[in-house]
Amino acid sequence: MQKELLTEKIKQTVEILNEKNIDMWLIFVKESSAIHDPSLDIVVGTNVTWHSAFMIMKDGSTHAFVGSLDVSNTKDCTAFENVYGYLKSLKEPFVEFLYKYDPANIAVNYSKNTNLADGLTHGMYLTLVDYLRDTKYLNRLISSEEIVSSLRGRKSAREIDLMRTSVKETERIFDEVTGFIKPGRTEKEIAQFILGKVSERGYETAWDVEHCPAVFTGPDTAGAHAGPTDRKVEKGHLLNIDFGVKINGYCSDMQRTWYILRDGETDAPENVKKGFYVLRDSIRLAGEKLKPGVTGCEVDDVARGHITSNGYDEYPHGLGHQLGRSAHDAGPGLFPRWEKYGTLPYIPLEKSQVFTIEPRLNVEGHGIVTMEEEVVLTESGCEYLSVPQTELILIKG
Amino acid sequence: MQKELLTEKIKQTVEILNEKNIDMWLIFVKESSAIHDPSLDIVVGTNVTWHSAFMIMKDGSTHAFVGSLDVSNTKDCTAFENVYGYLKSLKEPFVEFLYKYDPANIAVNYSKNTNLADGLTHGMYLTLVDYLRDTKYLNRLISSEEIVSSLRGRKSAREIDLMRTSVKETERIFDEVTGFIKPGRTEKEIAQFILGKVSERGYETAWDVEHCPAVFTGPDTAGAHAGPTDRKVEKGHLLNIDFGVKINGYCSDMQRTWYILRDGETDAPENVKKGFYVLRDSIRLAGEKLKPGVTGCEVDDVARGHITSNGYDEYPHGLGHQLGRSAHDAGPGLFPRWEKYGTLPYIPLEKSQVFTIEPRLNVEGHGIVTMEEEVVLTESGCEYLSVPQTELILIKG
Repeated sequence: MQKELLTEKIKQTVEILNEKNIDMWLIFVKESSAIHDPSLDIVVGTNVTWHSAFMIMKDGSTHAFVGSLDVSNTKDCTAFENVYGYLKSLKEPFVEFLYKYDPANIAVNYSKNTNLADGLTHGMYLTLVDYLRDTKYLNRLISSEEIVSSLRGRKSAREIDLMRTSVKETERIFDEVTGFIKPGRTEKEIAQFILGKVSERGYETAWDVEHCPAVFTGPDTAGAHAGPTDRKVEKGHLLNIDFGVKINGYCSDMQRTWYILRDGETDAPENVKKGFYVLRDSIRLAGEKLKPGVTGCEVDDVARGHITSNGYDEYPHGLGHQLGRSAHDAGPGLFPRWEKYGTLPYIPLEKSQVFTIEPRLNVEGHGIVTMEEEVVLTESGCEYLSVPQTELILIKG
Repeated sequence: MQKELLTEKIKQTVEILNEKNIDMWLIFVKESSAIHDPSLDIVVGTNVTWHSAFMIMKDGSTHAFVGSLDVSNTKDCTAFENVYGYLKSLKEPFVEFLYKYDPANIAVNYSKNTNLADGLTHGMYLTLVDYLRDTKYLNRLISSEEIVSSLRGRKSAREIDLMRTSVKETERIFDEVTGFIKPGRTEKEIAQFILGKVSERGYETAWDVEHCPAVFTGPDTAGAHAGPTDRKVEKGHLLNIDFGVKINGYCSDMQRTWYILRDGETDAPENVKKGFYVLRDSIRLAGEKLKPGVTGCEVDDVARGHITSNGYDEYPHGLGHQLGRSAHDAGPGLFPRWEKYGTLPYIPLEKSQVFTIEPRLNVEGHGIVTMEEEVVLTESGCEYLSVPQTELILIKG
């Protein structure tokens, strides 16, 4: 089964190589259990000890050079057809291989823009330069960013089904935690309740358990990416949770917002409701903009503009990112035109990519409103994988 | 407690910076839960999302630039005194910082030789070059390999105590599995028995559970680094196990060899015994050579020479490596002069480094003899952390 998935992804790689006219994709790694190129999980399926070269060619053939003691494990665990061992040095057999196949370009596993496509360490790059210094191939190296981005981004029907499951199970846990939230409970207790459900069902959290779930209650919270604290839920608080699960290797990443009614209240105050509806509509408008061919920054513009034109500060992050095997997955995202996002805001979006939409805004004196929905791009627009939150969830104080 | 350990290691870093006359160590990372620089575990203690610069200065001060949403978590989890957030781009505040401190040299987290010191991806290196292109600092970058090597290699008394515990618990499990090994059992069953003990006691395995433990029985095994198979133990087999545990963050890595008596035998045959004693003596001789100041290849020479001069093939790997938080730890090792080991065979060994010694040889028709012991370098020699195996462990067939 594992080999079937690997074979499917290798086949997809060969299609991408042909589409982009790249002769060879090289994944160059060493001691990969310590520093792990995420592409290994997609097309290789095991770790290696010494300098290893995994090569997928435009002609469909697959070749792996690994240390001699890794040969047996590599044959057992990967779908690579040709596995060659070496004892003392990879340089000679690897260079010989290049002269035999004579690739016009070699896509290598590094990327300035996309972390998950950037598994080549700088030390390994220097080693590769040593190997190729006296050959014509040194000048044929290019980044394999586009390959990885397409390979991770374009989800098969089976992958989208797996992601639906993760979303549905996240929504189920959000429903359950609604009954647990009440004044006096701490952020940590609420996080523990959720983690109890995760472990009871044999799931993993979608990111580091220290801040998955992240729970924020009230006006003075630590801000996104922080872990839950001993801060207690109080009447009048906005409370939000950022949480996802990984099931069968695929992640969800969602946020929901609750309001804790004060004595005598039957609904949230007007200013809280206004914030909620502005945020909800910013998500809806962004979703309406989303389709293959638009760029992420154009979509971010829509939500950011709706929020600021209603008098709120802009959110201090991107509108959304891809997800899949990783909660923050590779490739273009719904990012603003900020230097730290590199080229990613400007790359046209493709069909079958899955994105989060997750703006936020602050309601003075109450806390943060933030929802995070998940959508998949279709031929002409997008389809929600999550059931969007359209009203505040009210907790009786 | 976690912060105390981090503070201790930062203090040690400052000593190393002064000793090696390096003004600044820069750990430059991004999305570190996906591609994780192992140095973060030693001196930082948490993950970050955006481009982040962790800097330890020769003057003892510590500075971290992280994305604004990571500030709170970084303050909570790390022992860095100065944590600065940024929103759109790290470039400007980072360059400004450099001009303020004006370091004469900047050790950066990459290394050609040592995987665990090579956490900078090539994409991140290119980003760093973009930041520094128009400054005088681009030419002041050096590898932080030596810092990481000393920091991981030089074990404190507390660290050595933790490693003794891991060794002792490994020896205990080896004792227990001796009663379980018998003809008809498969390699997989033996591995499962060991993993049962590991999980019953709440330990982790020291490396990937797919081949920790690795179990090899008889003359036709898969070779090192392969996982256990359905191959059955038979009378006349040599059986060996490569196994380690991680307890409180510190690893063991050991091997032992058993012989399965044939009907009527009360001891192993002469050729098996000869192989065993040659191997055992090669370890003893290597241990006698080990002391601060010698190089790893000189120690490898001793064991390799003893084995080949007794008519056996040389082992297809190094004699031993360092260990600590990782089973294959950073820095110089007891390696032969092979290209793939880079400069590591030639670096003088230091006091308080912990090494494995693990030669192997083949006894035709029976299997592999291999033991792996653990030693720590003292002022004038080395001390065994393991109780060395001096006789074959005999299993009644």
